Amino acid sequence: MKNLTDLTKQIIKFRDERDWKKFHNPKDVALSLVLEAAELMEHFQWKNEGEIKKHISKSKKEIGEELADVLYWVLLMSHDLKIDLADALEKKMKKNEKKYPISKSKGKHTKYNKL
Amino acid sequence: MKNLTDLTKQIIKFRDERDWKKFHNPKDVALSLVLEAAELMEHFQWKNEGEIKKHISKSKKEIGEELADVLYWVLLMSHDLKIDLADALEKKMKKNEKKYPISKSKGKHTKYNKL
Amino acid sequence: MKNLTDLTKQIIKFRDERDWKKFHNPKDVALSLVLEAAELMEHFQWKNEGEIKKHISKSKKEIGEELADVLYWVLLMSHDLKIDLADALEKKMKKNEKKYPISKSKGKHTKYNKL
Amino acid sequence: MKNLTDLTKQIIKFRDERDWKKFHNPKDVALSLVLEAAELMEHFQWKNEGEIKKHISKSKKEIGEELADVLYWVLLMSHDLKIDLADALEKKMKKNEKKYPISKSKGKHTKYNKL
Repeated sequence: MKNLTDLTKQIIKFRDERDWKKFHNPKDVALSLVLEAAELMEHFQWKNEGEIKKHISKSKKEIGEELADVLYWVLLMSHDLKIDLADALEKKMKKNEKKYPISKSKGKHTKYNKL
Repeated sequence: MKNLTDLTKQIIKFRDERDWKKFHNPKDVALSLVLEAAELMEHFQWKNEGEIKKHISKSKKEIGEELADVLYWVLLMSHDLKIDLADALEKKMKKNEKKYPISKSKGKHTKYNKL
Repeated sequence: MKNLTDLTKQIIKFRDERDWKKFHNPKDVALSLVLEAAELMEHFQWKNEGEIKKHISKSKKEIGEELADVLYWVLLMSHDLKIDLADALEKKMKKNEKKYPISKSKGKHTKYNKL
Repeated sequence: MKNLTDLTKQIIKFRDERDWKKFHNPKDVALSLVLEAAELMEHFQWKNEGEIKKHISKSKKEIGEELADVLYWVLLMSHDLKIDLADALEKKMKKNEKKYPISKSKGKHTKYNKL
């Protein structure tokens, strides 16, 4: 299993071979991330639970591609902004553990500020 | 450096300890991904290049948290839908290499269907 | 009932009194529109049909504000780009009537290219 | 110039002739609004100021269609949730006038809570 560093190297190589860094300002990159996330969401639009289940079973490849597109931009932005993404996730998880203590949040989708 | 499998295990443990799986239908998870991507994008709103540079240098931690939030949902959805994300990225990159051959796309932000 | 021209005049007056036109480049305005639409969507996140119904009945004012925020940016962008929005809607409806003939699309949420 | 009531009547007639109300739950409608706003935003992606200007002059019709699509969902949701949209905008503008007094906010894109 490849780690985040390997995956990042691969996408940056792809990008730099095409001389695309000059387009990758943070605003447009964030915008791309939103657009790819929107394309993923579109897969589930207008469908009820049963239809979604069916759609996933026959469109797993396409959904995987959308998730890959989102990951591409997350890794690229983390690289360009010199953010250690694994470390950032680690820290965010610790923060979430405090915001959502198991005893208070178990089985509830209440936002932390209303727990 | 942690790999995607380790990071995924960690977030699924966090989720399952809180008994939140029951909320995580694909539509709402995709919706969360879009909302987190939007929060990331908000960091760059109304700012020109110089202001963005300044903002990044003083808000790196906050931006890292938003990227972590996006990654959280990407990993969670991949897990729940049984999608091998590293493999999906690998395949998508191969596809992109064909869609955007270096010779044709170097230095241009033209969409593949207009190359 | 006010028409689109009156509402547009009102928001442009608000904007120009604050000398904000200089910030309103199309990219950031479109980005604002997405962010406001995301805030609206957040109202329905993690809620099933019954919970949504309940939420609407007690948060109608807040939801109305989000819809107003979206309309604000739609009117502002139409104004700045010199687009006649009522006319654009008129034309789009005519197009949709052709793309989705009643006989073929009745009761179905199939996309026009799959009808 | 048509007012919001007339435009709303027209789109609801279009919708009801196709028997689509049954699909229009608030979550999916909000999701559609986000997707249409994202499509509008895509027009300005990867473009600098000059390229945006050029793009607008040659794609005004397409941009108008995206704005119309957003307006379609705003009007439809307001109708279905029995929200008086013109009234909601009126109230939001009054609120914004208090949040952003001219004397404090003139020429600044500072958020109200930091003024």
